[in-house]
Amino acid sequence: MSHPLFEKHQATLEQALGAIRSRAYWTPFNEMPSPRVYGETADADGKAAVEACVGREFTLDQPGQHGWSATERSPYGVPLDVKYPVCDTEALIAAAQAAMPAWQKLGAAGRTGVCLEILDRLNKNSFEIAHAVMLTTGQGWMMAFQAGGPHAQDRGLEAVAYAWDEQSRIVPEATWNKPQGKNPPLVMKKHFEIVGRGVALVIGCGTFPTWNTYPGVFAALATGNPVIIKPHSGAILPAAITVRIAREVLVEAGLDPNLISLAVVDKRADTQALATHPAVKSIDFTGSNVFGQWLLDNARQAQVYAELAGVNNVVIESTDNYKAMLRNLAFTLSLYSGQMCTTTQAILVPAGGIDTDQGHKSFDEVAHDLGAAIEKFLGDINVATAVLGAIQSEATVDRINEAGAHGTIVLDSKKLVHPQFPNAEVHTPVLLTCDAADEKRYMEERFGPISFVVKVADGAAAVALSERIVREHGALTVGLYSTKQDVIDAMTDATLRAGVALSINLTGGVFVNQSAAFSDYHGTGANPSANASYSDAAFVANRFRVIQRRYHIAE
Amino acid sequence: MSHPLFEKHQATLEQALGAIRSRAYWTPFNEMPSPRVYGETADADGKAAVEACVGREFTLDQPGQHGWSATERSPYGVPLDVKYPVCDTEALIAAAQAAMPAWQKLGAAGRTGVCLEILDRLNKNSFEIAHAVMLTTGQGWMMAFQAGGPHAQDRGLEAVAYAWDEQSRIVPEATWNKPQGKNPPLVMKKHFEIVGRGVALVIGCGTFPTWNTYPGVFAALATGNPVIIKPHSGAILPAAITVRIAREVLVEAGLDPNLISLAVVDKRADTQALATHPAVKSIDFTGSNVFGQWLLDNARQAQVYAELAGVNNVVIESTDNYKAMLRNLAFTLSLYSGQMCTTTQAILVPAGGIDTDQGHKSFDEVAHDLGAAIEKFLGDINVATAVLGAIQSEATVDRINEAGAHGTIVLDSKKLVHPQFPNAEVHTPVLLTCDAADEKRYMEERFGPISFVVKVADGAAAVALSERIVREHGALTVGLYSTKQDVIDAMTDATLRAGVALSINLTGGVFVNQSAAFSDYHGTGANPSANASYSDAAFVANRFRVIQRRYHIAE
Repeated sequence: MSHPLFEKHQATLEQALGAIRSRAYWTPFNEMPSPRVYGETADADGKAAVEACVGREFTLDQPGQHGWSATERSPYGVPLDVKYPVCDTEALIAAAQAAMPAWQKLGAAGRTGVCLEILDRLNKNSFEIAHAVMLTTGQGWMMAFQAGGPHAQDRGLEAVAYAWDEQSRIVPEATWNKPQGKNPPLVMKKHFEIVGRGVALVIGCGTFPTWNTYPGVFAALATGNPVIIKPHSGAILPAAITVRIAREVLVEAGLDPNLISLAVVDKRADTQALATHPAVKSIDFTGSNVFGQWLLDNARQAQVYAELAGVNNVVIESTDNYKAMLRNLAFTLSLYSGQMCTTTQAILVPAGGIDTDQGHKSFDEVAHDLGAAIEKFLGDINVATAVLGAIQSEATVDRINEAGAHGTIVLDSKKLVHPQFPNAEVHTPVLLTCDAADEKRYMEERFGPISFVVKVADGAAAVALSERIVREHGALTVGLYSTKQDVIDAMTDATLRAGVALSINLTGGVFVNQSAAFSDYHGTGANPSANASYSDAAFVANRFRVIQRRYHIAE
Repeated sequence: MSHPLFEKHQATLEQALGAIRSRAYWTPFNEMPSPRVYGETADADGKAAVEACVGREFTLDQPGQHGWSATERSPYGVPLDVKYPVCDTEALIAAAQAAMPAWQKLGAAGRTGVCLEILDRLNKNSFEIAHAVMLTTGQGWMMAFQAGGPHAQDRGLEAVAYAWDEQSRIVPEATWNKPQGKNPPLVMKKHFEIVGRGVALVIGCGTFPTWNTYPGVFAALATGNPVIIKPHSGAILPAAITVRIAREVLVEAGLDPNLISLAVVDKRADTQALATHPAVKSIDFTGSNVFGQWLLDNARQAQVYAELAGVNNVVIESTDNYKAMLRNLAFTLSLYSGQMCTTTQAILVPAGGIDTDQGHKSFDEVAHDLGAAIEKFLGDINVATAVLGAIQSEATVDRINEAGAHGTIVLDSKKLVHPQFPNAEVHTPVLLTCDAADEKRYMEERFGPISFVVKVADGAAAVALSERIVREHGALTVGLYSTKQDVIDAMTDATLRAGVALSINLTGGVFVNQSAAFSDYHGTGANPSANASYSDAAFVANRFRVIQRRYHIAE
């Protein structure tokens, strides 16, 4: 049971399946915002499309609409005031459920084809989405394009590939022929149908409204479930554009557009009611521990895939490339002002300092040199604003302003004036030092550009502390700098025990806070920062069930 | 990274992988207790091995032992008094954790090979296990052999096949080479390690101590986790023999035997403490809703795979083979006195009766004829005792004695005297009628040989009622008898919505309460009777995580 859209995208799917198997580099979506790839007018068109939304009603033709809501506030200080449809959540759920049987009957190949077409269409609209991501999240342009566009699409495609990989191994029918010695065999025909679990709720975050949302959206859709996206109140536009495009593709494919809808919900209580609705069978969530834990405790009717807070950390034991190490870390700490779930917060350095290719460096020298590297890197205002972006939430601005209370300041934050956006909230990172014993200072997530150089007894203590941080508080990323194989082995074992991904001696163009779709497992699901990996078989296999029927046939 | 035991069993594994893909009939374990297959002395040896346990200490050489416990009471009325080691659960957990790193480092192929060797060794001991199952559970001999031996081994093998299927697709290392336009590419070496989640607790039931336990045991073991089996206090011996054999294989393979241990726990509170221990990361449970729900509510640190109660039902709308239908149902209701999680409890029949090849039959005639078919089938005492076995628990005997209060008796239960076991608790089934409106009577699980012919308005009402029963109370099996394609289609759709397996017009040698490994999905995970299917990808994929490390290499 194939489908025209499956055939259209089959080559891409097969390459994606090859990539999740080999985990070598691959992507079908070009990460460069190049006119040659995306078209000469793509940037201008995308920008114009977003500007056309400002101050207007964003129509989606969803059921149960009873009003409009405009809650976004751009970190760049530009007016948005986009009005989104507010719909009765019961109406959205009922419409989603009504759309489900035809989606199930379409079969895995049909669903996969439609999902791939949506991703292809999203890719063609990457500039529009990127401008929407930039303005709502405060990301710099290049990140907004890459992470908001092609990289997010990669992650959606990765989820579709895993979903297909699992579903394609379910045979639709079988003949079961059991010998009975001298008697005639028992012969049965059996049919196996893949059935989605039910309505999937995907709750977006304010910083990565597409990158963190697409895996859940596409894993759920591809496995037969209707999806309701509940975006963060500060970053609705990228989700709304995504839903609009997906609904257009569904209609073109003769399917019910209510398979995917946008739930703009103003009150926390309404989100809670939606999340605990009996019809909601899965929830994908990225965000705070408080609401994530609430979901895990209360949305017991649903499978909850939650990416929560963590304390990402790097151990610096020694290095053979001191300057490149500092440059690499300076970029990591600056990128999108540390507003990434993967940004390093704690940098563990021995009290006695470290051996480097530049001679021995004391603890204080390491901290100072890292601060200086950040300062130097951000010395050019154009580089600084492009890399830092703007601060997404007032809470993060507050955290930056209060950071000095948590340690000794090595590098203080400065507010910068953005050349193009005079009202943008641009703040350089804060770098602090503290003692390993001062756990309250560095051992809880301080989301934003706030990091600590933590003084530990020695390299072994650093490895042990890193492991304990991951076990107790979770982490999506851990790094190590060491020239000694025994330290690398000890850290490897520690991360295997703690269940966290390790990057070793990054001194070039890859950063500990970057995760490449099809190759890196983003999150392991093995420590408190996330209960799932994005994506793997476990991320998709529980989203559908196989329902069988059997009856006798003549042999 | 292969392993001698992997190579030894590779052909079997490949056939098992073929079977879970094709879902055609296949098994490597002969279900006939034949001397030609299992050896001329196998039966006598197995019986002697079990008899040698009676009244003795069953030594396992486990850590933390501080006493002995003997709790089993044979439903056949024969003395058992086997004394099992009682071990400090903290010691079992610590030993399990200590055994885990080497098990992880062995790799998926090594673990798979060791699991397959354990299964092979269990198969060779099928007679010993079968006698132990028979005496502890009350199963008849043939069922004890088949379900307790080869069929349980099939299910363990099926779980190992799924576990290998998922793990073998994780590449151990990759080279990631990302082009950078005119600049040199970014090149990284990445390693991906499969790591188990942690200690797996498998809680057995009193009726199928191996069949219901092996999927969880082998799914957990194969994916890198140490296993602690907590058997039902009434059916310890089959689990103890299993643990003994598995530990022998582990020692022979140079591994720590504490990868699998037996937790004999007398008090419910101790089981609860074990189940909520922070080190316990998965729990496989088969049993009552009360304790199952307690686990789901309280063992939040673990992934809980629970098979709970249900109300299995059959819709009789019409038939073209009335006699064979009645014979088939009579066997289903008699087999092991209905003490199967798959036995039909509610038989939904239109008030106006049904069309059959023997003419129209009124509701009362159908109920009466079914009662007569059961009576006739059990007329021979040797057939009766072989099929019925004995009643496993006093609670079930009580339920049989009180069943008359729940409906109009069509066929009352009789206590039979077993020719070989004069003290055996042998009871024939009770068949009752009631009205569909009397939901309290038939719409909760009454475990044991108690079933209801339920009067429904018509065929359509029967299909709708079946769907509602499954949705609200769960079911592992649903059956339908109908000669009309539109009724079959309606029932098919109902079972797809409710999420339950359907058997249609069973009139021969396959019964609705039978589930064939490698072909039938036992449980769907889509209704309240079970939150997992045994086995499928979802049953194994969450039992391990992939931990990566990456570093730059020269191209």
